[in-house]
Amino acid sequence: MSIRRAVITAAAPDQKSLPLQSLVDQHGNPKTALELILDECVDAGAEEICVIVCPGAGETFTRSAGQHANRLTFVEQANPRGYGDALFRARNFVGNEPFLHLVSDHVYISHSDHGCARQVVELASQENCVVSAVQETRENMLPFFGTVGATRSGNRDDVYDVNSVVEKPTPTRAEQDLIVAGLRSSHYLCLSGMHVLTPGVMEVLGEQINATEGSIQLSDALHAAAQRERYLALRVKASRYNIGEKYGLLKSQLALALNGKDRDDILAELLELVATTGGGA
Amino acid sequence: MSIRRAVITAAAPDQKSLPLQSLVDQHGNPKTALELILDECVDAGAEEICVIVCPGAGETFTRSAGQHANRLTFVEQANPRGYGDALFRARNFVGNEPFLHLVSDHVYISHSDHGCARQVVELASQENCVVSAVQETRENMLPFFGTVGATRSGNRDDVYDVNSVVEKPTPTRAEQDLIVAGLRSSHYLCLSGMHVLTPGVMEVLGEQINATEGSIQLSDALHAAAQRERYLALRVKASRYNIGEKYGLLKSQLALALNGKDRDDILAELLELVATTGGGA
Repeated sequence: MSIRRAVITAAAPDQKSLPLQSLVDQHGNPKTALELILDECVDAGAEEICVIVCPGAGETFTRSAGQHANRLTFVEQANPRGYGDALFRARNFVGNEPFLHLVSDHVYISHSDHGCARQVVELASQENCVVSAVQETRENMLPFFGTVGATRSGNRDDVYDVNSVVEKPTPTRAEQDLIVAGLRSSHYLCLSGMHVLTPGVMEVLGEQINATEGSIQLSDALHAAAQRERYLALRVKASRYNIGEKYGLLKSQLALALNGKDRDDILAELLELVATTGGGA
Repeated sequence: MSIRRAVITAAAPDQKSLPLQSLVDQHGNPKTALELILDECVDAGAEEICVIVCPGAGETFTRSAGQHANRLTFVEQANPRGYGDALFRARNFVGNEPFLHLVSDHVYISHSDHGCARQVVELASQENCVVSAVQETRENMLPFFGTVGATRSGNRDDVYDVNSVVEKPTPTRAEQDLIVAGLRSSHYLCLSGMHVLTPGVMEVLGEQINATEGSIQLSDALHAAAQRERYLALRVKASRYNIGEKYGLLKSQLALALNGKDRDDILAELLELVATTGGGA
């Protein structure tokens, strides 16, 4: 299948300013966090990108989109009903085609020749199905992530058939239903904010929105989709940083710099800062 | 003298988003860069703060001002004619009183019990005169800063009588006119974006704006003021970081964290990142 469109969700109230934060990419170029995510999408082949935003935020996002501004379409999420609802607002944009979906508050650093989103899109194109990027994640991090139950698929040791998805499982639930053979002890496969989704997943989201008045989670829709259509998880060769958490921007920027062309300069500055600063506020 | 008002200049086109960048302060609290600068002002006793902004930027700044939003007045700099002109736009706000002035793109980390701006305000209040914060700066950094020619004042080893101010001097010019006794070899006293200014300085700025059609530099007005009224430089006990330069946010955030309550956690994360990242983009 061919994937020409991407959808980025950035409509949570605390995401108004997150994608506008300034970073320096691995090549040493100043970029906004939004530009880094758009770079991921474009590197993966996306020609048009829809960003779901808070009402009124489109203009600021356009100004922060750099050279990708002309690829962008904005859809405002008025009367928000959660992440799944935000994504569903792009249904007219994606129409009847599969699409790449990324969250707006993550920075990905690929440890392969291919970008992180591109790894996901390549697998989805080959296998014609839903694909979620996952990362091997320690049990203590389960309260923060959607987690998949899955079995190894075919010959590749990084691809899994997904049979269930649970949002922020308890350790007990995870131990009962979500253990995946071959991972390190007390590790699970957690979603990392990057997917190729199908019109089928949008259909499930629409059904859930009609069936309930509450908040709509993407994980629930992915779980339902796993019962209806082929759904793979790809353990991507990449690190993922959440810029929205405390010190998230610092860690993201350090990871970019230490994996990039300015590594030596930044290491030297780091050492000097560590040496010249004292403890205590 | 009593200083109740502060003026922050943030009207350069590249400063539209700088003060909105997210940082974590030394106490571990998430803040925007604007909030950190406003904290400096309020800690120094400022009750009302005027921010000079690009036309249309006030609303975004208000949203990023946190608990200090109700102290703010915005003045837009239409038809900009440089830094001195931006500052002069606050003339009605400051009226006939001395005021604290800070640039918007710096983060200051005090190495004294008192905040950096407070050190400057305390000296100005005692001595009833113009005071600029200065830092001992290596010759190779002269292309980036206004630099003062000065002699030691009284008994304090950190206070100087200023007799000249030159914007971004060449090394030759600096060696001829700006050597200050008692500093390390090849070091000069450079302005660090923090001043207490008087109505006299505003008057000079007004004269310069009327006398020329070009760009107005604060350094020129400070030089003229040094010939007319008492003007001290205070070598502040503080480090200063320019968030606008490449990797400036990274260095500022690292310096805040390594000088703050989260030092140990951040050091541990730093070491892990250094250990797990490789070289090359």
